[in-house]
Amino acid sequence: MYTTAVAMFQSEGEFVKWLRGLAPEKSKRVRTGVGDDAAVVRVGRDRDLILTADLSIEGVHFTSRLHPARSVGHRALARSLSDIAAMGGVPRFALISVVLPRAISRAWVEEFYRGVMDLARHFQVDVVGGDTSIARRIAMIDVTLAGEAARGKGLLRSGARPGDMIYVSGRLGQSARGLEILKLRARKSKRTLKKQPDNSETAAALKAHLYPEPRCHLGRWLQTAGIPSAMMDISDGLSTDLTRMCEASGVGAKVDAGRIPGPSGVAPEHSLGLALNGGEDYELLFTAPKRKVSKIPRSYRGISLRCIGRICRSRDVLLVDQDGRQSPLAPEGYDHFSK
Amino acid sequence: MYTTAVAMFQSEGEFVKWLRGLAPEKSKRVRTGVGDDAAVVRVGRDRDLILTADLSIEGVHFTSRLHPARSVGHRALARSLSDIAAMGGVPRFALISVVLPRAISRAWVEEFYRGVMDLARHFQVDVVGGDTSIARRIAMIDVTLAGEAARGKGLLRSGARPGDMIYVSGRLGQSARGLEILKLRARKSKRTLKKQPDNSETAAALKAHLYPEPRCHLGRWLQTAGIPSAMMDISDGLSTDLTRMCEASGVGAKVDAGRIPGPSGVAPEHSLGLALNGGEDYELLFTAPKRKVSKIPRSYRGISLRCIGRICRSRDVLLVDQDGRQSPLAPEGYDHFSK
Repeated sequence: MYTTAVAMFQSEGEFVKWLRGLAPEKSKRVRTGVGDDAAVVRVGRDRDLILTADLSIEGVHFTSRLHPARSVGHRALARSLSDIAAMGGVPRFALISVVLPRAISRAWVEEFYRGVMDLARHFQVDVVGGDTSIARRIAMIDVTLAGEAARGKGLLRSGARPGDMIYVSGRLGQSARGLEILKLRARKSKRTLKKQPDNSETAAALKAHLYPEPRCHLGRWLQTAGIPSAMMDISDGLSTDLTRMCEASGVGAKVDAGRIPGPSGVAPEHSLGLALNGGEDYELLFTAPKRKVSKIPRSYRGISLRCIGRICRSRDVLLVDQDGRQSPLAPEGYDHFSK
Repeated sequence: MYTTAVAMFQSEGEFVKWLRGLAPEKSKRVRTGVGDDAAVVRVGRDRDLILTADLSIEGVHFTSRLHPARSVGHRALARSLSDIAAMGGVPRFALISVVLPRAISRAWVEEFYRGVMDLARHFQVDVVGGDTSIARRIAMIDVTLAGEAARGKGLLRSGARPGDMIYVSGRLGQSARGLEILKLRARKSKRTLKKQPDNSETAAALKAHLYPEPRCHLGRWLQTAGIPSAMMDISDGLSTDLTRMCEASGVGAKVDAGRIPGPSGVAPEHSLGLALNGGEDYELLFTAPKRKVSKIPRSYRGISLRCIGRICRSRDVLLVDQDGRQSPLAPEGYDHFSK
């Protein structure tokens, strides 16, 4: 939510603060509203409902030049699924609103919805509605997802405490690496149509970008096991999202550069850059108190879980290199289409 | 939902049918999905959750030339509130996703959100999130609203039975009349800035268009009193929405032209046209079995309730004029910006 703040506000934080100020008197039904991965609200006696909405805009989140329609649909739903995963919830119901240019083909629309529906089916999510309209030029999608969590059990990004260890799932920067490959191919294909078979590293990076798998099962398992003190998804790059978690929790962090799992098959320095600042990984970032670390396996259903650092009392977010030198880890959220 | 079907599908019906076909195996949690005013889904033991999403697009649902920012915000939320009202539910939580052109002023954004928040407060709805992004030219809003109803009690449009009487709330065509006045003024103001005070008819029509009040309390009361056999809101004009109700219920209808409450202060024939085909009234259309008619008051909290006809076994939807002549009531959904 609010990954791109409205331009005339200085920052996402300022916008969220202003928006909260407009409606200060929240009802008792709202556990967390504007500003976390998703909103957590009360319905019934024993349930919390998790609500999230995510926009996918042509030219911002995808381009028809690089992304097949099926991937656009898959990614649009994946963004919201990842928000629910980040809270340890179970995704249940989706509303898909689409604004499409009049000139778009029926084949595109069919492939788009197949991308949505295949992923929905995979996570047993019911697509129950939405809205449709026509615009002049660009395609826009807004996915709203409702999920469930046991009352008061949804995980927030604000629970990290000094001394907690910091973990990430999977490999970071894979999606950004996939996008690099797609762009390279788009340029090459103008010169030559010769196609080489993908090696496994390339295939993994392309899959991570075009058909990312949100970590719903992992998030649910971590929540049920009572391990994380805080959790969120990595949608805008580790540097940006870890900074957000630290700000929400009122803490700082030290991250070991050498322990961050980046994409393989590229130069180490480039790999680190992608891992820190590449967006749309949809992996989970969580913290755990030291006494719970022994409960964390090396991997869960084939997804690796790696300790990359720890939470500190000081508010600084620092990167520690192989030689022990510390430098500030500035949030450099990846701008997907500026490069 | 799906008020504008995607252009390459022949009709809204065809699109909804195709969309349903993509995901035939709905879970038991879904009571009604794609195709009604809103989706009704199960959460917890005793509650149903009502979910609806509605797009508001510049150039389709509003123009910055005619609609102040506050009205744009009010109307965007009103559309979804009306969907919840139509099911007799209680609106609870809203997600507001906005895509805005980079050139828009901060004053516009602030007024827009005030319009949303003032209406939300009026109906005790919590705005709990959403998303924001930037587009090149036009503004777009997607409002998702979650409401509640007692389990299995949400009213659907498919329950009308032969012999039921047809009712509408308030005055139809008021919003379309308000839009006419706004357009007339926009043309006039190029020639002269002289402003006359609004008479009460003009003021009522302008309010109905710019700041419509969704019938949430009325819808809830009707549902609780167990009166309607079917209910929906009138968002695209009586001719269109009554046809939809009849199709969903597998019935027909006879409507008395003389009993339809249209806008006052205009010629009778023009008034009837506005009432039949003017959109965005957000009044309620419902049917009631004859034995329940005595429970329906002439008005509820100042909103009139008028019987305008009855449901028939034959599938035809007919308009009966003062002389008893019948003609087909063709769905002529008002295209707000084509005139």
